[in-house]
Amino acid sequence: MQQTRLDTARIRSARQVIDPMFRDTPLYCCEALEPHLGCAVSIKLETANPVRSFKARGTEVVASRLADDGSRAVVCASAGNLGQALAWSGRGRQLDVTVVASRFATRTKLDRIRALDARLELVDGDHELARERAAAIAHREGIRLVEDSLDIETCEGAATIGLELVDAGPSFDAVLIALGGGALATGVGHVVKDLAPEVEVICVQPLGAPALTHSWRQRRVVTTDSTDTIADGVAGRFPIPAVLDHLLVVADDAVLVREASIIAGMRMLLDHAGLVVEPSAALGIAAILEDRDRFADRHVAVIVCGSNVDMDTFHRWVGAPLR
Amino acid sequence: MQQTRLDTARIRSARQVIDPMFRDTPLYCCEALEPHLGCAVSIKLETANPVRSFKARGTEVVASRLADDGSRAVVCASAGNLGQALAWSGRGRQLDVTVVASRFATRTKLDRIRALDARLELVDGDHELARERAAAIAHREGIRLVEDSLDIETCEGAATIGLELVDAGPSFDAVLIALGGGALATGVGHVVKDLAPEVEVICVQPLGAPALTHSWRQRRVVTTDSTDTIADGVAGRFPIPAVLDHLLVVADDAVLVREASIIAGMRMLLDHAGLVVEPSAALGIAAILEDRDRFADRHVAVIVCGSNVDMDTFHRWVGAPLR
Repeated sequence: MQQTRLDTARIRSARQVIDPMFRDTPLYCCEALEPHLGCAVSIKLETANPVRSFKARGTEVVASRLADDGSRAVVCASAGNLGQALAWSGRGRQLDVTVVASRFATRTKLDRIRALDARLELVDGDHELARERAAAIAHREGIRLVEDSLDIETCEGAATIGLELVDAGPSFDAVLIALGGGALATGVGHVVKDLAPEVEVICVQPLGAPALTHSWRQRRVVTTDSTDTIADGVAGRFPIPAVLDHLLVVADDAVLVREASIIAGMRMLLDHAGLVVEPSAALGIAAILEDRDRFADRHVAVIVCGSNVDMDTFHRWVGAPLR
Repeated sequence: MQQTRLDTARIRSARQVIDPMFRDTPLYCCEALEPHLGCAVSIKLETANPVRSFKARGTEVVASRLADDGSRAVVCASAGNLGQALAWSGRGRQLDVTVVASRFATRTKLDRIRALDARLELVDGDHELARERAAAIAHREGIRLVEDSLDIETCEGAATIGLELVDAGPSFDAVLIALGGGALATGVGHVVKDLAPEVEVICVQPLGAPALTHSWRQRRVVTTDSTDTIADGVAGRFPIPAVLDHLLVVADDAVLVREASIIAGMRMLLDHAGLVVEPSAALGIAAILEDRDRFADRHVAVIVCGSNVDMDTFHRWVGAPLR
């Protein structure tokens, strides 16, 4: 494989500093989905942990290195999952964690960040404004700014999922990966293309937040003025050039899906897999629903990457009215 | 510990024949539950696998030994989870699996048993009638009858959960275990009392299916004429004497909980842990809700043992109306 900014040996090392609680997550074929999707689906479940998303894999690597360096504080911008994960990883290592988020972020994510003893600062805008604000705080206080997908630790952490997929001796021939900032897609994509290149790496992004997919297709950074999606975890507007470069090497495809398909995917995972997931975690199922012919009779792996949803909102989406 | 019919070394051996897919399940502290329960709760999640319950741990041991012996067929009675698990474990080893169940069993459990290529026979009565019918089939066809909780493999399989709890270096001081036939309670109880005797082993059964709890309290087998509970997975009427004897050695307590508490527990796991569970899996939370003082400021482990529910029924229980 072409040289990229990730290295499989380094990813294996990174894996060692991640709390075992976040590693070796369940990977199983959910046969009950098959009649509804027309293909075999293996689920890699990243939600059964204290922060209910895969993000702690990356923040464990970040926080571990910061603690080794004697750092005391760290700041990040987050749509909610990174912040929660950094708060968890930092708390265990006596780091002061500041998280900057949009005040429109998912309520339960903000509540959990506060509950994990992080300082939470809200901005009156979207995630990109939170990124600016976090950078300003880091500059002012002279502390480490964690930038999701840009910082190599966040990609290495996410990439450990790829190791576990490949080490399982993959029976699947494609892996569907939620595409947001790109840490998950480039991380997992890197490992899969390095160790199991025959497996197709397909990134999935909402039509309402298509910046990185458009960038991948045009092979140059394309930004958007706004986002419009319920998949808050992947709603960025400014792709990171280095991440795009990497994605161009490891992704076989990047597809966009409609909001209705994301909701249908969430409902399907609830009804047939018994899983509550956040919208970003249903992107893979949405992609199958939108292109059944492409996946017919194949075996695909989907990474169920997060389950932090406001339950009232969840019920509204999947169609069970509020109680 | 007093000698019992289980042996920890044998349980460690049994663990080796269980498909890794069912082992090393997530164990994590769910802090979001704490403010609502007044105690720290660690979840041992047994639902993220192809049969959505812990039962495959036992059927893997059963089917592995049957395959080693050259057996071709096996039959069991089941409320649904054992049958699904035996169907899964048997299919992979070319065993013909027959499952006898009540026609009133949870629909999705019956559907999944059929989907796993087992022969499903329904009886017009409860689980105890299914047990009689399964025994008759075994006798007529000269094939192995798997009797949950009585057969040592089912207990050894369930006991492997105990190994994983103990190997994690338990920070919890009590473990709450759903009590049905007793395989889970005696299995996990045995390992905990053998290797971490300071941890309190508390069994939880519905008030509407109290036979084994009454038996434990009176130190003799007590049967009931009927059961009345939504917790179908633990609704037996005829405790097995050998299992009771074992339970008397390993259980520190056995408590009964109301249906309303089971439903409140299910709702709490949905709202604060993002978990869809079947009623039996909410018994531990129900026990905490009914006796908050007992658990105040303690750290308890609960085994979330199954998630096979009809989603419409689930929504009706937890209060979100049908869509």
